[in-house]
Amino acid sequence: ALKRKGDSSSLVFADLTADEYRQVRDYMWNQPALDIARDSHAKPSENFIFMIDLQLPRKADALRFLDKGAAKPERNARVVVFHGTLGQIKEYVVGPLPIPTYHTDVTRIKYKADVPLSSRTVTIGEYSLLFNFLGRELFGKLDKILKESFDIGTGKALLPYEAMPRGIRSSTGMRVFDIRFKGERIAYELSVQEAMSVYGSNTPGLILTKFLDASIGIGRFAHELARGVDCPYNAVYVDTVRYIDITEPKTFKNSICIFEHDTGRPLRRHFSDFFSNSYGGLANSVLVFRTITAIGNYDYIWDFIFYQSGSVEAKVHATGYISSSYKIHGSLKYGHQVAENTIGNIHTHFINFKVDLDVLGVKNMFQVKDMTFKEVELPWLPGQTAKVPHLVEKTLRTEKEAAQRNGEKIPRYLHIASNQTNRWGHQRSYRLQVISFTGEHLPEGVPEEKSMSWARYKVAITKHKDEEESSTSLHSQNGMLNPPVDFSTFIDDNENIMEQDLVAWVTTGFLHIPHAEDIPNTVTVGNGGGVILRPHNYFDQDPSVDSPDAAYIHPT
Amino acid sequence: ALKRKGDSSSLVFADLTADEYRQVRDYMWNQPALDIARDSHAKPSENFIFMIDLQLPRKADALRFLDKGAAKPERNARVVVFHGTLGQIKEYVVGPLPIPTYHTDVTRIKYKADVPLSSRTVTIGEYSLLFNFLGRELFGKLDKILKESFDIGTGKALLPYEAMPRGIRSSTGMRVFDIRFKGERIAYELSVQEAMSVYGSNTPGLILTKFLDASIGIGRFAHELARGVDCPYNAVYVDTVRYIDITEPKTFKNSICIFEHDTGRPLRRHFSDFFSNSYGGLANSVLVFRTITAIGNYDYIWDFIFYQSGSVEAKVHATGYISSSYKIHGSLKYGHQVAENTIGNIHTHFINFKVDLDVLGVKNMFQVKDMTFKEVELPWLPGQTAKVPHLVEKTLRTEKEAAQRNGEKIPRYLHIASNQTNRWGHQRSYRLQVISFTGEHLPEGVPEEKSMSWARYKVAITKHKDEEESSTSLHSQNGMLNPPVDFSTFIDDNENIMEQDLVAWVTTGFLHIPHAEDIPNTVTVGNGGGVILRPHNYFDQDPSVDSPDAAYIHPT
Ligand SMILES: [Ca+2]
Ligand SMILES: [Ca+2]
Ligand SMILES: [Ca+2]
Ligand SMILES: [Ca+2]
Ligand SMILES: [Cu+2]
Ligand SMILES: [Cu+2]
Repeated sequence: ALKRKGDSSSLVFADLTADEYRQVRDYMWNQPALDIARDSHAKPSENFIFMIDLQLPRKADALRFLDKGAAKPERNARVVVFHGTLGQIKEYVVGPLPIPTYHTDVTRIKYKADVPLSSRTVTIGEYSLLFNFLGRELFGKLDKILKESFDIGTGKALLPYEAMPRGIRSSTGMRVFDIRFKGERIAYELSVQEAMSVYGSNTPGLILTKFLDASIGIGRFAHELARGVDCPYNAVYVDTVRYIDITEPKTFKNSICIFEHDTGRPLRRHFSDFFSNSYGGLANSVLVFRTITAIGNYDYIWDFIFYQSGSVEAKVHATGYISSSYKIHGSLKYGHQVAENTIGNIHTHFINFKVDLDVLGVKNMFQVKDMTFKEVELPWLPGQTAKVPHLVEKTLRTEKEAAQRNGEKIPRYLHIASNQTNRWGHQRSYRLQVISFTGEHLPEGVPEEKSMSWARYKVAITKHKDEEESSTSLHSQNGMLNPPVDFSTFIDDNENIMEQDLVAWVTTGFLHIPHAEDIPNTVTVGNGGGVILRPHNYFDQDPSVDSPDAAYIHPT
Repeated sequence: ALKRKGDSSSLVFADLTADEYRQVRDYMWNQPALDIARDSHAKPSENFIFMIDLQLPRKADALRFLDKGAAKPERNARVVVFHGTLGQIKEYVVGPLPIPTYHTDVTRIKYKADVPLSSRTVTIGEYSLLFNFLGRELFGKLDKILKESFDIGTGKALLPYEAMPRGIRSSTGMRVFDIRFKGERIAYELSVQEAMSVYGSNTPGLILTKFLDASIGIGRFAHELARGVDCPYNAVYVDTVRYIDITEPKTFKNSICIFEHDTGRPLRRHFSDFFSNSYGGLANSVLVFRTITAIGNYDYIWDFIFYQSGSVEAKVHATGYISSSYKIHGSLKYGHQVAENTIGNIHTHFINFKVDLDVLGVKNMFQVKDMTFKEVELPWLPGQTAKVPHLVEKTLRTEKEAAQRNGEKIPRYLHIASNQTNRWGHQRSYRLQVISFTGEHLPEGVPEEKSMSWARYKVAITKHKDEEESSTSLHSQNGMLNPPVDFSTFIDDNENIMEQDLVAWVTTGFLHIPHAEDIPNTVTVGNGGGVILRPHNYFDQDPSVDSPDAAYIHPT
């Protein structure tokens, strides 16, 4: 495990240490008014600390500290308490760390309502991965390992991202803060929000239970990664520390891996025999951050991939066991038989990512671009026309206008843009390219749909709010009919999104019709989706031209 | 270069050797009636052999030989002659090899019309890659190389495909015949057909010239691959021999590479701490066949990827230089400025693959599957209903019904199915999963559109015909207004496709709005597309369970 050192800026996003967890826990235990049980086998009628996690600073405070030299924001914890005595779940902000002196009930501020304690038994919940390292340190180690393992010095290829993992931690899933490329912040946050499935079945157990079961999200099970299978043998493996459904922080060894990977396909190349008989090219070496979460039957592989060209990709693949049911009369309307008396039930996989791009600061706009054929008169043949492709660009002004629904025709290029221009006069932007194969989303009239309303949109754009931290909540699985977070309300107020701090919420996934080859395990091939964030007129030219690994050959 | 040996079955698809080229050329030169010039600098008014290539045997003959022990079909060549004296292009079948004794003019049989010799100067034409090796041999060498280079014996992982590259050659682009997995043929042919682009511009040079220029297809320029950049250093590099626009066969060194690649992501894995605390997984090692063609400014990277799970993927990525034009008034309607006075013009990339799956023989059907929500009464709550996902399956009966147009709502699962069933009673099938980001296709009314009418369809299914060998032709770039091949006519006769030999024609690609980062070269990240052919109830379970590389861990 890597240890914390030096650079204090990472502490803004760094997760709680085992010591900090204990400080927060002890502070809460010592509040007589809260009357919290210290026993890990507390009864449902008692009060119990379910989870401790980092409370993110307000974004404005973090940016003032990171960019303007203001004081470091106070470091706080978020504590989720199951109040058996009240029949409620409450969330507290506890601070300041390292020695807490206060706690505030933020439940109503966060969810605009009380959250009922419908069930003490949370069999599957949110997981909280906690990183305890600094980017610089990690990269130093990575570089050394890669240097030792291979014949090449690789640090240079990764150079553009050296300042990147200032903060990286995970609560609902893997997340990265303050992604910088060539020293410039391109994203404040990139994070997994939710993984949801809806199953088809005619067996009572699956129609609703699985339905709820599947809405949990990413789950809390990120276990040790298998060296050489889950990640390359020489990857850097990082431990995480979590405090959830226990009374002592627990370390999960090697639950994150980070590695450089050669995609086996050049990033770019060109051979010319027309004029110069020359060759230029560059191998596509990428940096991968990975966790794998095993939520009951399913395993999701979560990758954040960093390219030399300044692109960043968030990718998810499903594997593990399919959910199945005993074959009864009529079962085949809901899936295929995959084994003796066993139906693999049809289901959806919907995944939501939060993509808080900050393109040259927080004041951005949402642009869409596409192509259309227009009739044009030929300059040299008056009266004669031809259909010619035209570029169509548009800036969308409000949250509702910007909401790109799944299943509808969506402009092919979606951009978060600055109003600053590059050398050629074009607005500097990052493009969102979504790779998705989702099935139908639950119809909107269905009551439970509100708890997963983010899945209506392939891409939705909202004005950033600290209170709209996530498209889902820890408590959604217990209250789908009256969910603490209904994402659609984020855009219902239809705010102006011109020159605002914008957040893109991206949905990907695939329809899964299980078949015999899903036994024993669903394979990852074709069973995934993601989003690529690509610089588009952000630079004046491709930034990988500076890569020292580029090859140029001029044959004689 | 690998040499031919032993197994004669591969000769059905193996390309012509340098000796065979010369035999065919000499035979043609010696026909007084054809009056063919022997000078490589023949005048446009003379007759000239433009290209020699393998003439594929009729599929029925090849199958009788491969599967029924019938005699090996006669080996023939296809010869394209530019008849300056007639103002026509003619195609001849010349045979039998090795010593030809006859030639037949097949132009009208093939194209139902004469092909005018609009221009002797073919600046960019079809290319013809010619393989000279046998599968068994190649794999032997590959395995040895991989064994020497890495610490692992890899042949076993690739075992299921050992009989695969019986024939592999390329005419319009890379192609593979008789793909067998675990000894069973899954595809008769997988081949690149065409690469097409349509540009937007207001400069006379680009509106039509590029338009035609872009319809050429894959081009004839597959040059030497750069070791370590274009393909991994330790790949097997294969030479090809071509006879096009010359008078002697020419060898292109290392113009194809074949390698095993670790995708860096497990093929499957599952960790369970619920019941058994066990782990199982398998690294995703794939076999890649690659060519890279540089057609003037653009480079296309063509990959056929073979997975241990029985999936086969055809993938294309674009890189190289974008086409650009001098910036004039009004240019920005057609693209972005990407350099001093330079507009990168908006354009489409459309790629067509021929996918002749044979699922347990040639008698197949085309099935589509999808999911829909239906209102269902809850068994335990009479009167109460819920929306529940249902599996919807349909077999499409005619070519027109089966044509899946770009831009329209397409069923999510497309299958070529046998009427034989697997152990669980389901029709054994291969699914086509298309990954595509195409822009608008040229409107159908436009005269040139007929020469690229395959691009109307994301997937089209036709009844196999030897005469419908390709969705395009070598002569299309010279006759776009009256193209020798108009793909849409393949389905205009709307034939019955129930229990027929089916061919899927798959279109992929992307809309390209050039931006500053396309300078100096378009990067491959996000700029590609393809199709994955996936077994779906083809087996009784995932065939990779037999892989000796699978890891199983039961921690104590
Ligand atoms: Ca809002
Ligand atoms: Ca933002
Ligand atoms: Ca037909
Ligand atoms: Ca077929
Ligand atoms: Cu699934
Ligand atoms: Cu392009």
